[in-house]
Amino acid sequence: MRTIDWVDGAIEIIDQTLLPDKLTILRLTSVDRLIDAIERLAVRGAPALGVAGAFGAALASRTAVPAAVPAAIERIATARPTAVNLARCARRAGDRLAEGPEAVLAEALLIRDEEIAASLEMGRRGADLVIDRCGPAATVLTHCNTGALAAVTGGTALAAVVELHRRGTLAGVIASETRPLLQGARLTAWELGAAGVPFRLAVDGAGPFLMARGEVDAVILGSDRICANGDVVNKIGSYAHALGAKAAGIPFIVVAPESTIDPDTPSGAAVTIEDRGPEEVVAFGTRAVAPPATRAVNPAFDVTPAALVTAIVTDRRTIRLDLGERP
Amino acid sequence: MRTIDWVDGAIEIIDQTLLPDKLTILRLTSVDRLIDAIERLAVRGAPALGVAGAFGAALASRTAVPAAVPAAIERIATARPTAVNLARCARRAGDRLAEGPEAVLAEALLIRDEEIAASLEMGRRGADLVIDRCGPAATVLTHCNTGALAAVTGGTALAAVVELHRRGTLAGVIASETRPLLQGARLTAWELGAAGVPFRLAVDGAGPFLMARGEVDAVILGSDRICANGDVVNKIGSYAHALGAKAAGIPFIVVAPESTIDPDTPSGAAVTIEDRGPEEVVAFGTRAVAPPATRAVNPAFDVTPAALVTAIVTDRRTIRLDLGERP
Repeated sequence: MRTIDWVDGAIEIIDQTLLPDKLTILRLTSVDRLIDAIERLAVRGAPALGVAGAFGAALASRTAVPAAVPAAIERIATARPTAVNLARCARRAGDRLAEGPEAVLAEALLIRDEEIAASLEMGRRGADLVIDRCGPAATVLTHCNTGALAAVTGGTALAAVVELHRRGTLAGVIASETRPLLQGARLTAWELGAAGVPFRLAVDGAGPFLMARGEVDAVILGSDRICANGDVVNKIGSYAHALGAKAAGIPFIVVAPESTIDPDTPSGAAVTIEDRGPEEVVAFGTRAVAPPATRAVNPAFDVTPAALVTAIVTDRRTIRLDLGERP
Repeated sequence: MRTIDWVDGAIEIIDQTLLPDKLTILRLTSVDRLIDAIERLAVRGAPALGVAGAFGAALASRTAVPAAVPAAIERIATARPTAVNLARCARRAGDRLAEGPEAVLAEALLIRDEEIAASLEMGRRGADLVIDRCGPAATVLTHCNTGALAAVTGGTALAAVVELHRRGTLAGVIASETRPLLQGARLTAWELGAAGVPFRLAVDGAGPFLMARGEVDAVILGSDRICANGDVVNKIGSYAHALGAKAAGIPFIVVAPESTIDPDTPSGAAVTIEDRGPEEVVAFGTRAVAPPATRAVNPAFDVTPAALVTAIVTDRRTIRLDLGERP
């Protein structure tokens, strides 16, 4: 099953807001519906957002009046400000607009196929690195969701985790729940269960302590944007895990497609961090947690400085930041 | 209003599991009901648990057959393994058993009055230290609930926060929600709102990043047990905040009654950390989050090494660990 695909002239996605309760396929036939799906995280994860952006450009080129297509593609490209893949892939497909809608779609399908191949390669390279650093029975901690649901198939960091399991070299996984939207509890737990990988769930605040207690051999997670200096932008909570890994002396490994590396972003200081407002924090689903009118600070991402990153694994290379290499 | 008190021959507590939705007073007339209230966190927080233990000894001395009283007091003392105040205060009141039930109650009432006085003093000392370290307009981050609800009145770390506000020297508070049981979102938010203190709620994983971004001037929180070497046992997530504070170069201040210091516990390595099982993590209230049969690792507390602690403020002294002092 593919998380996102182009089917009979429209985009089809698994609605991730309904997992793990319901597996529902959404058919998106307009740019507005796609942007809504992106904004409410029905589709999420850097690689999947890249494909969504490219398919969105194809959709815009077929459904909008020609003069409005470039603006529609830009609206898609900027639907989530921190996601560099979304913007880059929407624009890459849009760059073929002069050749007509079929050329835009062909480019988008190529991006999809590239993501599928990239995921296989990241899984192999990530597993190799964990075995190299931690031996043949590692327990890894992962954050947020970086599996097939974040990509088209396979995923990034979770592809490496599943590959470790396939090779018989995985002792276990600790999945950190990833407040506020609980992608770890809802999505990663669902995927690991489906793949038969042994795992335990933990609250985000427990990660560094479990590392200090010796229960984690490596942290492995994804990225939404990697800066030119090696700073890693990823789901809020990643930086705390990186501090924990450093203090415990265990590797902190980032797995992300080459396209996540943005040479135009010199460092994390240059990145706009989206604040998603109070609703996600003060309520849990439809149930209010905090008293009425409670304010919140809700950064969706954080920045892990390059100095805390052991290595960045992409579909093309393994960049050993701990050995002084840089993207 | 007092969080816990002795009223007409029984213990009355605010049931904290129902806040912020409902303010309900529970009347506990038996040792079994008290232990149940302790286990399900209807009463919680180190000072309040101390008073609960002492009142529990008084209750046992009045309701159990004489031969069964010592065992009943021990059951209360060990109802939560990490809470040193609970055990110490239950045993301190129980030590007067030979003088009769009224002597046990007198000792318990004395413990209650000592906690009220201690809270005032901790609030003053904690506020003095924050102003000394951060100037007259600090934004502080706090974790879990350390306010009146954790004590009889006032509290520990939150008493200092409210005192800073009373003096006009507080720019704001970031309350970290404190998964899995959300004491920050439910209880601290409720208390700060009631006291008119400006605050924002954040997910636990955001704390260290907000510190790195310069949005926090000090971390101030409580403790369930302070070891002889200065290691601090506190709610899960505290250690991650301590790592964040160290990396950001801001003070990490622990406020707790002198009775929290346990000279018989040499270091954090000697502390049994309660694992509260999967239910709190895999579900949110009554709503399941993770797929069925998901396992969890759920340590209720963590250990912050003394090297990450700037100071411990008690009702008697301010111990500057950053200057080499030890409890």
